[in-house]
Amino acid sequence: MTDALDTSLAFTPRFDAAGLVTAVVTDPAGALLMVAHMNEAAIATTRATGKATFWSRSRNRLWKKGETSGNVLHVREMRVDCDQDALWLIVDPAGPACHTGATSCFYRRVTDQGLERIA
Amino acid sequence: MTDALDTSLAFTPRFDAAGLVTAVVTDPAGALLMVAHMNEAAIATTRATGKATFWSRSRNRLWKKGETSGNVLHVREMRVDCDQDALWLIVDPAGPACHTGATSCFYRRVTDQGLERIA
Repeated sequence: MTDALDTSLAFTPRFDAAGLVTAVVTDPAGALLMVAHMNEAAIATTRATGKATFWSRSRNRLWKKGETSGNVLHVREMRVDCDQDALWLIVDPAGPACHTGATSCFYRRVTDQGLERIA
Repeated sequence: MTDALDTSLAFTPRFDAAGLVTAVVTDPAGALLMVAHMNEAAIATTRATGKATFWSRSRNRLWKKGETSGNVLHVREMRVDCDQDALWLIVDPAGPACHTGATSCFYRRVTDQGLERIA
């Protein structure tokens, strides 16, 4: 079933009870870098500055990615999914996206024996 | 700061209050197809069957993607992020991933003028 949100050309993010949508971040080649959350202010800041800004649930404040590390994410494009509760940010990363220093937060594969580090 | 979860080779998903983690689904080329949620049973079913199974928050039940449309997602690989609250499924889709018939749920770009359909 499709509904109005699926076909609308109005950007009307569907925030959850905490006022957040999921933000998926990839590089232009499609490598998944990280997953975070955005509230209305984070979306507005990201659109205004061109640098990815999220809502930190642990720190309970706006969080410009790279504000301390310098590893900002320059946003090339933002897309929204069918029911407007998830965003896709296609970015040029200035450095490793993960706080561990890994290029991507997804550096471990799930195997039958547990996790396997792949990057 | 890194902590034990960042380096552990034990797969211990960090479920939220609703018992869910975020699941990001891409094809092998890196195209973002959809974002959904998985609980422990969805993860176990996906690993056992090789077909992506999620937790439907709207229907409040396990949801094998493609169970009605036939557009199942064959899972090549599952990865987990640094703090183990998000999964990346790399899949071979049997058909369009979006319920609207689009290849990807992310068929609209956010522009200054609203949304622009791109697929």
